[in-house]
Amino acid sequence: MPTIRQTVRRSGRLTALARGVRDAIRGAPAAGSTSAPQSATAAVAARDGLDGVAELHRVGPKRDAAAAAGPRLNLLVPTLSPARAFGGTRTALDLFEALAPRFPRLRIVAFQPIPDAALASLEGYVRANPGDEGAPDRVAVAVPRGPGAEPQLAVGPGDVFLATFWTTAELATRLVRWQAATFGGEPRPHAYLIQDFEPGFYPWSAQSELARATYTGDVPPIAVINSGLLADYLAGQGIALDDPLTFEPRIDARLRPFLAEPARERVRRIVVYGRPETPRNAFPVLVDGLRSWVAGGGGGGWEVVSAGRSHPPVELGRGLRMRSVGKLEIEAYGSLLRESALGVSLMVSPHPSYPPLDMAHLGLRVVTNAFGPKDLSSWHENIVSAAAMTAGAIADAIARQSAAFEADPAAGGRARPLRPDYVADGPIFLFADTLAERLGAGL
Amino acid sequence: MPTIRQTVRRSGRLTALARGVRDAIRGAPAAGSTSAPQSATAAVAARDGLDGVAELHRVGPKRDAAAAAGPRLNLLVPTLSPARAFGGTRTALDLFEALAPRFPRLRIVAFQPIPDAALASLEGYVRANPGDEGAPDRVAVAVPRGPGAEPQLAVGPGDVFLATFWTTAELATRLVRWQAATFGGEPRPHAYLIQDFEPGFYPWSAQSELARATYTGDVPPIAVINSGLLADYLAGQGIALDDPLTFEPRIDARLRPFLAEPARERVRRIVVYGRPETPRNAFPVLVDGLRSWVAGGGGGGWEVVSAGRSHPPVELGRGLRMRSVGKLEIEAYGSLLRESALGVSLMVSPHPSYPPLDMAHLGLRVVTNAFGPKDLSSWHENIVSAAAMTAGAIADAIARQSAAFEADPAAGGRARPLRPDYVADGPIFLFADTLAERLGAGL
Repeated sequence: MPTIRQTVRRSGRLTALARGVRDAIRGAPAAGSTSAPQSATAAVAARDGLDGVAELHRVGPKRDAAAAAGPRLNLLVPTLSPARAFGGTRTALDLFEALAPRFPRLRIVAFQPIPDAALASLEGYVRANPGDEGAPDRVAVAVPRGPGAEPQLAVGPGDVFLATFWTTAELATRLVRWQAATFGGEPRPHAYLIQDFEPGFYPWSAQSELARATYTGDVPPIAVINSGLLADYLAGQGIALDDPLTFEPRIDARLRPFLAEPARERVRRIVVYGRPETPRNAFPVLVDGLRSWVAGGGGGGWEVVSAGRSHPPVELGRGLRMRSVGKLEIEAYGSLLRESALGVSLMVSPHPSYPPLDMAHLGLRVVTNAFGPKDLSSWHENIVSAAAMTAGAIADAIARQSAAFEADPAAGGRARPLRPDYVADGPIFLFADTLAERLGAGL
Repeated sequence: MPTIRQTVRRSGRLTALARGVRDAIRGAPAAGSTSAPQSATAAVAARDGLDGVAELHRVGPKRDAAAAAGPRLNLLVPTLSPARAFGGTRTALDLFEALAPRFPRLRIVAFQPIPDAALASLEGYVRANPGDEGAPDRVAVAVPRGPGAEPQLAVGPGDVFLATFWTTAELATRLVRWQAATFGGEPRPHAYLIQDFEPGFYPWSAQSELARATYTGDVPPIAVINSGLLADYLAGQGIALDDPLTFEPRIDARLRPFLAEPARERVRRIVVYGRPETPRNAFPVLVDGLRSWVAGGGGGGWEVVSAGRSHPPVELGRGLRMRSVGKLEIEAYGSLLRESALGVSLMVSPHPSYPPLDMAHLGLRVVTNAFGPKDLSSWHENIVSAAAMTAGAIADAIARQSAAFEADPAAGGRARPLRPDYVADGPIFLFADTLAERLGAGL
């Protein structure tokens, strides 16, 4: 039985899909416009509460009476469409792949329509309906949304679940309770890939509280946490997870060649990770910080480029203008970084986030922010954390890094990582066998 | 020198203004549609970050060279217009009034235009420009917003500040730093009335971080915290405030007559505190909770009324419909409560919030939510906190309270408060003299 990775490698289309999904999720400027939920999504949902919590997946479990041949691992993902992929799908696919060899049957459950291109590239997978009993061993199903009768999902005694976003974890909790009531026994554990503190994606609201409840509900998950920093933050919030599994973020494999390249000359250019529509990237205070830097005498001879999500140019004062290049292909992104002096990337989250680490490892001097237990200045010599999330502190940090560049333009290329994790090779999910066991792979 | 309260009492218009502002801030159904920031505001600001952080008050201090006759207390409020008043203005006016007798000069600084009606009702106050030097002893100034030159605010060595919302605290910090640099000495302490955890009004973002920074910036405030619960929450978040002052919420004086009234017969009616546009009132999960209650067999013979903010009717299932009465006048609100059996009011915040306490003290059985250190079931025998912020837990709590009402319809009227604070009489700001001293009233 081929692993998903093997399947992916055999298929150019699946490779492209996987890349697209990964980039979309990753939020890398290469294709990073669609991490979710965006502010508009959250806000519309918050206003549009007359019909209940819009984010929840209203799915009714249905008894799958077909004879089951061993356990089936179900990946629950908001979407399989690269263009609309939700945060975490890239790593979710990697984790699913790492677990897949242990399960004779696999089902991918998405909550948006699966485009034909996505299905076609899922080699070995066939489209099925969520309610189909006795489905083939490799199926992808799209659960319909919107008005109408509540859709049904066939669930048998052998189904186990890997949830990826809080809405899918909320559903998994209901499914395993129903499964226990229907087929007997205790609710089976479900895995929950946690890649950010998702209650923070919303103002305090029904959504933030429901997201928080998924960590410690009445059916506790097997938490799989992207980064020790996020795990520390959750613990600091008093969220008691039962024996969580953690892993550390890794550089995109396609950026690795740039690590080994001989040094190029770097121009006085600041690359900003700019996503105005994503609140946690704090674009407004980044603009204020750059303007404060310019007002304080900075910016002479520099250019400022925003990569991430296309936006209109922003005047920074004294004739300096930040121009947006929007999403870049990964190769163009790598080249831009290798020829630029400074990077500025903010992320209001305890998750380390990828762009400041990409930038630092590719030799840029980086300004980012601390948050809770996160301080990336202990991850790479090129990284400075602004003393506060204020325009003044950001301007000070940019001034410091630009002065350091002017004093020694090649120093960023010589600076060293302080932790090996980000560019480590080898398997990332060292706990895959343990997790499969805990999920009941050996049923 | 008359106090503001005395001034208010002499003026019908000012009384009306004060009531309007208080109701608006209070979020009471009587006029409670405008507590801020609403989701739309926050979301638009989050998307609209191309010109920096839109919420900040871009005001430049200007040296007030006029000879000053003693200290001037400055109230910094987002708005003085009742229809657009920001959360906290009611209590801010009360606190300003309590401090006013200790200061020979007073200035109210608003960041929205002050309507003629508002100015006319501010007896003894005259309109002035923010940049006026040597202004009269009682002035109200409106700082203009929007494109154009940065507005200036005249600041002399005797100015002290009472901030009320995080944006005004951020400004106060800059003003006192400028004041110290201009006139010498250390930055003077500013008071900061904290009435909610305002970072929670936003998704994680530039705004949430800037709001958080106002608690523990480089110029620490004298924190005046509305409720010990909120103070506990801040401490639990590791926010170290220097010797904070706290006070407890009080029932609106105009509801007091209803407390003393003989019992009226109560109908099987649930009064919901319904503000769909305010995320922290968690309207979507309230709808899901009511529907779950009906689906589980509840609702027969009951009616459901939503008071707070007008919205379309909501079908709850089995023919039951929640109808909105929008904002009620305070007397109508009191009467509605006195004749209803149950109240449901959610608030995703550690602040106790007023509606569930109003309801409980007026004899309704109440369902609300716990949050962090908040559990209002220890405040009044009529209050039940749902076990979780989920539809199922809310439905369970409603079922429990409705069954209790059916078993003994008069019991709610006999139930007792477990803390005396909410209906206590007498001065609320027992620390007013201390605070005035710390602000430098005796300069």
